[in-house]
Amino acid sequence: MFGITPSSRLRPSPFYEATLAEGVTAFTTYNHMLMPTSFGHPEEEYWRIINSVSLWDVAVERQVQLEGPDATRLAQILCPRDLSKCKVGQGKYVPLCNHDGVLINDPILLKLDEQRYWLSIADSNIWFWARAIAAERGLNVKVSEPDVSPLAIQGPKAEALVASVFGDWVRELKYFWFHQTELQGIPLVLARSGWSKQGGFELYLMDGSKGTALWNIVREAGKPWGIGPGAPNPCERIESGLLSYGGDSDDTTNPFEVRLGKYIDLHVPDDVVGIQALRRIQAEGAKRQQLGVMLEGDKPTELGFHWHAIYKDGHRVGDLTNCVWSRRLNRNIGFGLVSSACAVDDQVIVHKDGQPTSARLVNLPFI
Amino acid sequence: MFGITPSSRLRPSPFYEATLAEGVTAFTTYNHMLMPTSFGHPEEEYWRIINSVSLWDVAVERQVQLEGPDATRLAQILCPRDLSKCKVGQGKYVPLCNHDGVLINDPILLKLDEQRYWLSIADSNIWFWARAIAAERGLNVKVSEPDVSPLAIQGPKAEALVASVFGDWVRELKYFWFHQTELQGIPLVLARSGWSKQGGFELYLMDGSKGTALWNIVREAGKPWGIGPGAPNPCERIESGLLSYGGDSDDTTNPFEVRLGKYIDLHVPDDVVGIQALRRIQAEGAKRQQLGVMLEGDKPTELGFHWHAIYKDGHRVGDLTNCVWSRRLNRNIGFGLVSSACAVDDQVIVHKDGQPTSARLVNLPFI
Repeated sequence: MFGITPSSRLRPSPFYEATLAEGVTAFTTYNHMLMPTSFGHPEEEYWRIINSVSLWDVAVERQVQLEGPDATRLAQILCPRDLSKCKVGQGKYVPLCNHDGVLINDPILLKLDEQRYWLSIADSNIWFWARAIAAERGLNVKVSEPDVSPLAIQGPKAEALVASVFGDWVRELKYFWFHQTELQGIPLVLARSGWSKQGGFELYLMDGSKGTALWNIVREAGKPWGIGPGAPNPCERIESGLLSYGGDSDDTTNPFEVRLGKYIDLHVPDDVVGIQALRRIQAEGAKRQQLGVMLEGDKPTELGFHWHAIYKDGHRVGDLTNCVWSRRLNRNIGFGLVSSACAVDDQVIVHKDGQPTSARLVNLPFI
Repeated sequence: MFGITPSSRLRPSPFYEATLAEGVTAFTTYNHMLMPTSFGHPEEEYWRIINSVSLWDVAVERQVQLEGPDATRLAQILCPRDLSKCKVGQGKYVPLCNHDGVLINDPILLKLDEQRYWLSIADSNIWFWARAIAAERGLNVKVSEPDVSPLAIQGPKAEALVASVFGDWVRELKYFWFHQTELQGIPLVLARSGWSKQGGFELYLMDGSKGTALWNIVREAGKPWGIGPGAPNPCERIESGLLSYGGDSDDTTNPFEVRLGKYIDLHVPDDVVGIQALRRIQAEGAKRQQLGVMLEGDKPTELGFHWHAIYKDGHRVGDLTNCVWSRRLNRNIGFGLVSSACAVDDQVIVHKDGQPTSARLVNLPFI
């Protein structure tokens, strides 16, 4: 693995010291911050998410805060999903699009009060975007990056752990709903959320100076359930069919191509950015689709930086946008962003690492 | 040094294979791409830039292309610098600002023809920004990312090398001016430019499939001048006083605070984004300034991810935004983003790595 050279362009998170103490060995960068990706025991870290409970520094999921009299109006202008019934305390997964209907992020929107929202973003700069739209339309709203950093608790034992710390009320929390609370004086928002399909919560730390304290409290409380450090896991997320914005999408991808059409409401007002383009794309039908790709062979692949071309009957039909060895399926799997003319069970050829590999298109998720 | 976990969110450059063959050992990420930072011989790589000629993969300096009937209009709207006299073939360094006058990037603008411009950007997403402004104002212009990837040739021997390959006309090229040409059939733009003060050129490769070919041609041609692989060098750039957008700036930094006021033309039209705020800031006077910081002690510091607080007479007056061991000054040096009340020769205290270090404010550049 290559090294990552330190630079103040890449900010550490409030949980950085805690993850150093846990023995972090590798990072990725995301929203100009460092995110831990490994603590040196990849197999153990995977099964911890599947079988017990794992603690993740996901402070890189930054918040774009919209605040002021026009916050609700700006939120709807940015989101091609109907927010008119969104309640305070509710979160919603929203594909953000540009004026051409191209996906530019897929945040969770959290409605904190009638004049304050957070977009808990994936890896692209939505502060610039939201500020540009707000300023050009003359809206009375402040767009900022508050001191808020999520810590994820993921896995089948997460609920029992979080209930033991915060109380049984957390068991009633619906998916993406949240509650403002505190823990031993540390202010936070507790949400049922997280970038895995194993269940869990995110604690949105609201005081960056308390990162190590919060980490240690959860680490200690989680001992009875076998908690340990982890990170968003490429294997688990691909098995589970979760999109990685910017990894599985490119500069022309629209939401319909990557299974996000169900989060688009075409009846939202005409001033919503991209809605006219999305109506047109939906009417014409998307040209690509996202399917699972199950590769032949039993030699575990390694993670890579590239997309890989997919061919069918000698013609290029799309790209394999990620590829990982599935520890539960014992096969190499990935997502294909392929022509709409392709179908499940099609046999294809993936050009990967300089050689063709046979593969089959399948439904997502894998598991 | 920590590892960097591969992900298709982080794209390799067209020169990736060539840098692998050269023995690259470390990367940074920049505009969601990998940029080599070391080939394992830091001292040798530094002196190569200072004394001879160095070859850098700077494909991460992506191009935001503005093309169409309103391209000139959009370029001026985005840039608070007077472009009315900018000629085809000319480049200009331009601080881009948001509506509040906050610096959001500091690209080189290249005027390719009357309807086509490139913004050769630093590390922030200007495609989203430019598209938002263009669409909201109803301009007839296409904003795209063309297949263009710069390769830098930097150092005092760069001109002799580039002249030997392209001809003596390159000696007449003025700083930031450029010329569209080709090399053994490889299309490129040749510019006098580069992120060092040692002189040099950038070859904007216009066909991503030819990265290894271009690298190898220049590598071979440079042998008489002792060429070797390198990268934008933190030590050289700090000694030379070059700004790193996002590293030396934050979410409130305006151009006047970081020595870019000379690139702002306050008389540009009122519809230029941020110009009203910049006029106000200039009239009121910037609250911070960027000065050199010369630290005491002769133990070489290591590169880090953090800013470090600067104190004067017991009060916090700003931050040290970078810090490096200067191989020419044999001192630890860095940039201070400090209160306008500070002055050159002030004695300050830097809180770095958990301990106070005495330091002196000095003029930039250091060398």
